Amino acid sequence: MSRTHKIIFESEGIHVEVPTGTTLTEAAQLAGISINHPCGAQGRCGRCAVQILEGNIRRRSSLRLTTKDLEAGYALACQSIVEGDLRVSIPPQERVERRLVTDLTARQVTTPEDYDYLTHQTIHRINLTIEPPSMEDQTDDWSRLQRALRQTGNIIHPKISLSLLQQIGTVLREGGWEVSAIVEVPQEETNQPPRLVALYPIHFPDGKPLWGCAIDIGTTTVSVWLTNLITGQVHAQVAEYNQQIQHGEDVISRIIYDSKDHNQGVLQNLVLDTINQLIDQACKRAKAKPEEIFKATVVGNSIMLHLLLNIPASSIRLSPFITTANLIPPFSASELKLIIHPEASVHILPCIASYVGADITAGALSSGIADAEKTTLFMDIGTNGEMVLGNRDWLVTCACSAGPAFEGAGVIDGMRATKGAIEEVWINSQTYEPNIRVIGGGKPRGICGSGLISLLAELFLAGIVDKSGNINTALDTKRVRTGPHEGEYVLAFANETSHGKDIVITHVDIDNLLRAKAAIFAGYVVLAESVGVSIQTVDQFLIGGSFGQYINVEKAIEIGLLPDMPWENFHFLGNTAVMGAYHALLSWQSYQKIEQIAKRMTYIELSADNTFYEAFMSALFLPHTNLALFPTVAKIKAEI
Amino acid sequence: MSRTHKIIFESEGIHVEVPTGTTLTEAAQLAGISINHPCGAQGRCGRCAVQILEGNIRRRSSLRLTTKDLEAGYALACQSIVEGDLRVSIPPQERVERRLVTDLTARQVTTPEDYDYLTHQTIHRINLTIEPPSMEDQTDDWSRLQRALRQTGNIIHPKISLSLLQQIGTVLREGGWEVSAIVEVPQEETNQPPRLVALYPIHFPDGKPLWGCAIDIGTTTVSVWLTNLITGQVHAQVAEYNQQIQHGEDVISRIIYDSKDHNQGVLQNLVLDTINQLIDQACKRAKAKPEEIFKATVVGNSIMLHLLLNIPASSIRLSPFITTANLIPPFSASELKLIIHPEASVHILPCIASYVGADITAGALSSGIADAEKTTLFMDIGTNGEMVLGNRDWLVTCACSAGPAFEGAGVIDGMRATKGAIEEVWINSQTYEPNIRVIGGGKPRGICGSGLISLLAELFLAGIVDKSGNINTALDTKRVRTGPHEGEYVLAFANETSHGKDIVITHVDIDNLLRAKAAIFAGYVVLAESVGVSIQTVDQFLIGGSFGQYINVEKAIEIGLLPDMPWENFHFLGNTAVMGAYHALLSWQSYQKIEQIAKRMTYIELSADNTFYEAFMSALFLPHTNLALFPTVAKIKAEI
Repeated sequence: MSRTHKIIFESEGIHVEVPTGTTLTEAAQLAGISINHPCGAQGRCGRCAVQILEGNIRRRSSLRLTTKDLEAGYALACQSIVEGDLRVSIPPQERVERRLVTDLTARQVTTPEDYDYLTHQTIHRINLTIEPPSMEDQTDDWSRLQRALRQTGNIIHPKISLSLLQQIGTVLREGGWEVSAIVEVPQEETNQPPRLVALYPIHFPDGKPLWGCAIDIGTTTVSVWLTNLITGQVHAQVAEYNQQIQHGEDVISRIIYDSKDHNQGVLQNLVLDTINQLIDQACKRAKAKPEEIFKATVVGNSIMLHLLLNIPASSIRLSPFITTANLIPPFSASELKLIIHPEASVHILPCIASYVGADITAGALSSGIADAEKTTLFMDIGTNGEMVLGNRDWLVTCACSAGPAFEGAGVIDGMRATKGAIEEVWINSQTYEPNIRVIGGGKPRGICGSGLISLLAELFLAGIVDKSGNINTALDTKRVRTGPHEGEYVLAFANETSHGKDIVITHVDIDNLLRAKAAIFAGYVVLAESVGVSIQTVDQFLIGGSFGQYINVEKAIEIGLLPDMPWENFHFLGNTAVMGAYHALLSWQSYQKIEQIAKRMTYIELSADNTFYEAFMSALFLPHTNLALFPTVAKIKAEI
Repeated sequence: MSRTHKIIFESEGIHVEVPTGTTLTEAAQLAGISINHPCGAQGRCGRCAVQILEGNIRRRSSLRLTTKDLEAGYALACQSIVEGDLRVSIPPQERVERRLVTDLTARQVTTPEDYDYLTHQTIHRINLTIEPPSMEDQTDDWSRLQRALRQTGNIIHPKISLSLLQQIGTVLREGGWEVSAIVEVPQEETNQPPRLVALYPIHFPDGKPLWGCAIDIGTTTVSVWLTNLITGQVHAQVAEYNQQIQHGEDVISRIIYDSKDHNQGVLQNLVLDTINQLIDQACKRAKAKPEEIFKATVVGNSIMLHLLLNIPASSIRLSPFITTANLIPPFSASELKLIIHPEASVHILPCIASYVGADITAGALSSGIADAEKTTLFMDIGTNGEMVLGNRDWLVTCACSAGPAFEGAGVIDGMRATKGAIEEVWINSQTYEPNIRVIGGGKPRGICGSGLISLLAELFLAGIVDKSGNINTALDTKRVRTGPHEGEYVLAFANETSHGKDIVITHVDIDNLLRAKAAIFAGYVVLAESVGVSIQTVDQFLIGGSFGQYINVEKAIEIGLLPDMPWENFHFLGNTAVMGAYHALLSWQSYQKIEQIAKRMTYIELSADNTFYEAFMSALFLPHTNLALFPTVAKIKAEI
């Protein structure tokens, strides 16, 4: 027999009745209250802490809560089982603030020099002047239109949709047999027929833009580039947080959320909302209309693409880690519920495996690794750690499930790179006092990825943390103390912070960061070994992902996240994924090149690889077990 | 300034307020009352007569109403303009009764002897046993499925829809990697890729039927044949009146109705309802499920096909008579809103011109004319008069806009061939007294097409009507009298009829019938002349359309509707249109043959042809100006 209990959400003044066994997260959902669950309600991140003012709950886990928190009645909503009436207070939720690449902050995109609309583009606009019908020539409208398309545009046997067929008779007559056709011509060698996409009762002037958009669905950030397909010029670059974030910060959390029956389609709708709002925003900026966009290319990791298409992704998470499809055929915008022209083709770029997606195949094109003469390592530092090693002759790739530690998740005071995040740290090796730089100035609220790299390097160089990641609690400084999770270093005391709480890094945090960087470093090693070269012989290191731009190379080498090589060998390329999508949008030759890249990349499955485990264990140190791999760091360390 | 008036529908007890200028038809529609308009509210048929009990209306036309009717307050609803308050009585509307071809009345369909599912059919069902994924083989689901399709079914690079892609991961795992695929393989030489239509988590037994359906959309009747694509056997033949009839009995009335903005989509929905109900009925009879039907072929005249697809048909009606498309690409059932499997292809057979549709191209295959050695005339006697002349070497075709007079429209006491219709008449040439046969027995209510042919022939042979169609009112019989529309012959007096009104044929009716039969005969002549042969040299005469089966050849020759040739040269084939659709459903070779027939048919536009006008004028007599063309009739006439 199930009993029901009354849950009063004091802060919102709402109450709900729920049966025994409900979690507080579910109860809040029922009450229409949104609580952040960056870890997908797995009890790992601690962001869903709520305060129990009255009544008792059963705690499945209180990891991530201090003794002090527990004494104050805090509990993790996702881990709290309702067993009686409750009065609950929900703290204000962290709001998503902006540090996104937009027109204002983005570098100007250079149109490829050799771009030629007529030979590269698959979408063409053709003005047609058609012979009107007569008793002598009773040819039907569609044949008549096809005749004009053949004569004027060399378009042979085009396909047409039912909804367009319903319109052509009216459009032809409304335009007085002068019309403008939007046509999709096939890529060479694909054996596809051309397709009539739209028909307008007017001759458009040559200068009128013909719109397309490149879309990058990142786990964290979604970017859209609105492009004039005739000139190749990007007219608007917009980006926004992926609205799916509220249901998990990493891909695994999202898959778990999506797998639950009652969440069917929720994540798809959230990412579609994000994309459609961005398209709308880009169109406003470029004075275009969404329905005038006739082509889209989409990149993203395999999970983001499955969720976009509402394809169940659960088999990706479970061994043997299988996607439903790596090569996804093009679909129409209306099938995908995008707000661009309903008959626009949406081309989803090819993926390689469950954890090496189209962001990587597109990035392998735009970064230049696929054409490189030198041995090159290309890495997209995003929420996942995927990398490619190779050159124009060979390419190997792997994903090293680094986890989102460097994006601030799994770290007690971690946060995204928004206002209030500590992004750079210097520590005095005598006094152990820190000096910090905060995004947007003002008092800090947490530490973002680049801040964590910086902090870890400084802690190590200052001798506060040893090479195993242990905090030396014997040091004579109030900054080092023993907290609820063993040793911790206080980066900012409560009176120095914007939220009035200490900002610390704990032993557990350091452990998580070490695991993340070790996974990435082990990825380099295994990739290199798989082709019989050593990581030291890599000639250049290309880093994609907007996060990459904020990394301090020196500090990243000091913690062993990047290999020890001359700084000039590192190149930060920004969002290589959307850049690859943009190339594929402009030219079918680039699209085919990405398909060829996908075909010639050899995927190395790390979880099936013993050498990975060994390399990972050796890299769980600062900077590495084998200091010979990091001569520069050894030298600095010796000098301090 | 517009005033409103109160219209009380006495018979229904409903009233509405309408502005000045509204028609009574519109007012009735507003009140939710359905009035039949077989002529599409053109004031031609007289079926919408209503009685004005109080108040005055402005009459646009009172054609079709007798003086007595007018005195009794009758008015045509479609021609009555509201100018003040009214009280109106609507007589009970003619109900559609059945005389349809169904399993019970249809001839057994013989499966083509040489039918071979594997080489003729485009829909195949293949049981697949798939290697499950492992860490050693992480191939994605879709590639894995494609591998099995290639190995087991030689299916290379199939297409897949988004909705199916969303399901395959689940289906593969649910079936434990044993699944059954429904695949559409391309017709040879079409360069089309194959397509995965559906996937089921089970191995189906070989004996389970694989369903398809052939659909014939007649202006009057819609027929569906449910067929097992593996054996070729027809499991259910069902037919029903096209629900569009309520908005016009002929194609012109339908186009006019459809062209009005507020009627957008009404006719499409009505024919879809008709088809879907028939599919449902056929499935129940054959113990099948609509969603297990994986292919459909559709025939019909060009207007019916435009209306099915909701393509505006108005340009078909106006010179120069242009269709939107004669060759319509295949669409999915979901696009067309048919209740069969949403991904089933619906193949619409090719049309030739505005008034020569897929019913004729399909009939040209199934009738055998396209393979005939002898010179053959094939004619589909339906609501329209289309015909084809030729043999296996050449084919010419025309449509002669005969109008629906032989279906009872445009004739004062005309009706469809349902219960109560007079279907055969004999007149005593001495007493001028008639002898009639009524469908279903009992008292008559009107005259159907075969009855009209019979009646006209008898009136002519008995000398009541001369060769110009004039009624000899000088005859000494109460059967002949002068009515409101000149001379008329009373076939049944009020006391002999079921509705208590005289059943007559008037001079105007005879004129309409003469025009219809003259148009058809002129069609033969012009077609024959266009290829330099004479109609007398035609070796056989193939008649399609279910109406054909009820025609008395002797009488039809006597009025000059059919040419004077030995009776054994006439062959009544039943519904040649649906039979052609059935052949195309079974075999892509037949489908292509119909496409080739469409290509090699030469269309003769009669309205642009002077010889047609001359031939038409010469045929406006009983049986013809030139009696030498009808030696048998001349002989009979001489003997009486």
